[in-house]
Amino acid sequence: MSVYAKAYGLTKFRKNDDSIYKLALDSAIDLIKRFKINKDEIDGIIISTSSSEPYMASIIAEMLGIKPKIANKLEQMCSSGSSAIIDAYSYLLSGLCKNILIIGVDKYDTKANQLEWDANRGDFKHPAHWAALFAKAHMREYNTSEDDLALVTVKNRRYACKNEYAYFNNEVSIEEVKNSRLIVEPLRLYHCSYPCNGASSILLTNEPDEKPVKIIGIGAKSVGASIASIDDLRSITSSRVAAREAYSMASIDAKMVDIAEMHDAFSICEIMLYEDLGFVEKGKGGVFVREVFDEKSKVKVNTRGGLLGCGHPVGASGISQTVEIVMQLREEAGMRQIKDCKIGMVHNMSAAGTTSNVIIMEKDYG
Amino acid sequence: MSVYAKAYGLTKFRKNDDSIYKLALDSAIDLIKRFKINKDEIDGIIISTSSSEPYMASIIAEMLGIKPKIANKLEQMCSSGSSAIIDAYSYLLSGLCKNILIIGVDKYDTKANQLEWDANRGDFKHPAHWAALFAKAHMREYNTSEDDLALVTVKNRRYACKNEYAYFNNEVSIEEVKNSRLIVEPLRLYHCSYPCNGASSILLTNEPDEKPVKIIGIGAKSVGASIASIDDLRSITSSRVAAREAYSMASIDAKMVDIAEMHDAFSICEIMLYEDLGFVEKGKGGVFVREVFDEKSKVKVNTRGGLLGCGHPVGASGISQTVEIVMQLREEAGMRQIKDCKIGMVHNMSAAGTTSNVIIMEKDYG
Repeated sequence: MSVYAKAYGLTKFRKNDDSIYKLALDSAIDLIKRFKINKDEIDGIIISTSSSEPYMASIIAEMLGIKPKIANKLEQMCSSGSSAIIDAYSYLLSGLCKNILIIGVDKYDTKANQLEWDANRGDFKHPAHWAALFAKAHMREYNTSEDDLALVTVKNRRYACKNEYAYFNNEVSIEEVKNSRLIVEPLRLYHCSYPCNGASSILLTNEPDEKPVKIIGIGAKSVGASIASIDDLRSITSSRVAAREAYSMASIDAKMVDIAEMHDAFSICEIMLYEDLGFVEKGKGGVFVREVFDEKSKVKVNTRGGLLGCGHPVGASGISQTVEIVMQLREEAGMRQIKDCKIGMVHNMSAAGTTSNVIIMEKDYG
Repeated sequence: MSVYAKAYGLTKFRKNDDSIYKLALDSAIDLIKRFKINKDEIDGIIISTSSSEPYMASIIAEMLGIKPKIANKLEQMCSSGSSAIIDAYSYLLSGLCKNILIIGVDKYDTKANQLEWDANRGDFKHPAHWAALFAKAHMREYNTSEDDLALVTVKNRRYACKNEYAYFNNEVSIEEVKNSRLIVEPLRLYHCSYPCNGASSILLTNEPDEKPVKIIGIGAKSVGASIASIDDLRSITSSRVAAREAYSMASIDAKMVDIAEMHDAFSICEIMLYEDLGFVEKGKGGVFVREVFDEKSKVKVNTRGGLLGCGHPVGASGISQTVEIVMQLREEAGMRQIKDCKIGMVHNMSAAGTTSNVIIMEKDYG
C-alpha cells in the first residue's frame, strides 16, 4: 500500500485578529472546493498547531460537517506540520483510515515562538540566539560571508513574490539585508523568519488519482539539545540522520532530488542544510548558495519563498512546505513552476534543529 | 504484523504542585525500571496531554535520555490517552517504529476540564450539564433510579480501594452518594469524576514477549454534538459506532469480553455504556448494574476503580485504562485480579460522548 497527496488548500499568510478556527476553516474549505472533495470520504482529521485550544480536531470536524474515525491535535513546535503528515502516513498504512485531512494552523503570537526550555541551555529563550551560534561557527570554520547569508534571504524573498499566499511580496537586496536591524550578532532582521497567522491543508489518501504524487521516503529524529548543537555547531545532527533515513527508505540519494523545501527559519539554516541534507560537502554551503540562487544547481530550493519569504505560522509551515512540493510535482505551481521535477523533498525542523523530519515524494505519473 | 503491550508505568493520582514534567517522568521511569527496558530501543514517544507546554515530547525524551525517531504531543480532550495508543498502533503497523513509549499526563487545573465550545450547545460549559441531561432522559425513559446511578459509584470506589494508584481509597455507601452535594439535578458530587494530577505510561511494540497481550480491535468515531446528544439522549452514538467497528475488526462480540474499562466520567455514563457497548439491551443498564456490582455478569467493569474512583487527569485516563486491561490479561492486577480474563476492552470518550475510542485486547498466551 502507498500514500498519495490528493488535494491541498492554502490561505494567505497574514497578521490580523482572525481566530484560529477561521484560519483553519479557510484553508480546509479552499481544499474541499478546489478539488471538489466529497467530505463523507474523509475518515481522519489531524490538526497541526501549537494552539492550546482543547478538542480542536473534533470541533473543526463538526464545523466542516465531517464525522471522522480519527481526530487528533498534534504539536511538535516548528515541525508539527511534517510530524502530522508522517502521522497521517502511518494511519493510512495501518489500514485504519483511507482519507486524512491535515490542517496546519497557528497565530503570530503563539507561545511556541519561544521555548522556555531553551533557558536550560544557556538562557537563550529566543531561537535567534541559537541560529547566531550556528552562523558564527560557520563563518569562522568555513569563511562563510555576510553576503552568502544575505543571498539566502534575497533568493527566498524573490521566490515569495511569485507566491500569492506568502506574507512578503517585495524583493530585498543584499544591501538591504545587511543594513537591516541587528537582532543577535551576526544575524539581522531579514535573516529571521517572521511569526504570522497562517493555515494550510493537505489531504492524504491511499488511492492514487490521475496525477499521483507518492510518499516514498520518511526520516525523523529527535536528538535533544545536548548532542544537537553544543558538541558540533557545524552540523544539524537531527537533519543529517533524518535525511539519511529518508534517502535509504526511498532508495535514492541527494543527487536525485529535483526540488526541496528546507526549513530556513534563519538564513544560516538553509546554508547548513545544503550540507547536512547531502547536496554539497560540509563547509561548501556558502559557495553553493550562489548556484542555488542562479538556479544552476540541480536541486531548486524553497521555491515557495521559504519561511523567510512566506512567514512562519508554526504549525502550518510544514504543511505549506509539503503542499509546495506536491504543487511542483503536479505542475500546478504557476509562475514559480520548476520544469521536470520528478523527486521532491520536505525538510522541517524544530527548536534549534533538535528535531528534524524529512519526507521524500515522487511524481508517480507521466 | 501485530501490536503488543510490553510494559507499563503508573503513578499515584494526586493533587499537588508537581510540574507536568515531574508527573510524566515519574510514570515513565516506573515503566523503565519495572520492566528493565533498554531505553535505546525506544524509537517513538507520544505524550497524551492537554497541557499547553510546547515541544513536550522531545523535552521529555531528552530528560529520559531517549533519542526517538518519532516524537509527538497529542491532544483530544478526555480521550487523548486512547487516541495516543491508536496513534502508536498505526506507527507500529506502518513500520516506522518498533517500540513506542506513550505517556499520558495532566494536571488537575487543565483548561480541558471544561469546553468553551459547549457554549454553542446551550451555554453548558461544564460537562456535568450534559451528563445530567443523559441521566434525566434515562430515568424518564427506562425508570432508572437514583439507587442504580449511585451503585456505579459505590462499585467503582470499592474497586479503587484495591488500587494503590487511585485518588480515592475509601468506600462510599449508596446513602452517601445520594446525600452528597447536588451539582446539576439529578447528579451529585459523587456521581462525578474528580480532576486531579496523574500520569501513566505504556510501551507498545511489534515483538511479542513471554506474556503477550495483543491489540485485536480498534474502533473510533468523532460525531459532533449535533448528532451525538441532541437527537437522542438515550444513546452515546459515537460509542456505539466505535464498539461496532472494534468488535468487527476483532471478530468478536460483546458476549466474549471478560473485562472492560468504561469511561465513567459520570455514573450515568457507565449505565449507558453497558447498553451502547452491547453488553445489555437498551434501557436495561439500570438493572444490569446490580449484576456487575455483584460480579455475576461475565464482563467485569472498571476494576481499576474507574474515573469515579481513580480520579480523572484528562490525558492520563485512557492510558491508565489500557494499563488496567494489560495488567488483568497478564495476571498482574494483584488484589483486584479477575480470574480467567482472555479478552479485554478499553472504552474512552470525550466531551459529552461526541468522540469515542474502543480498543480490544487479547491475552495471546497460556
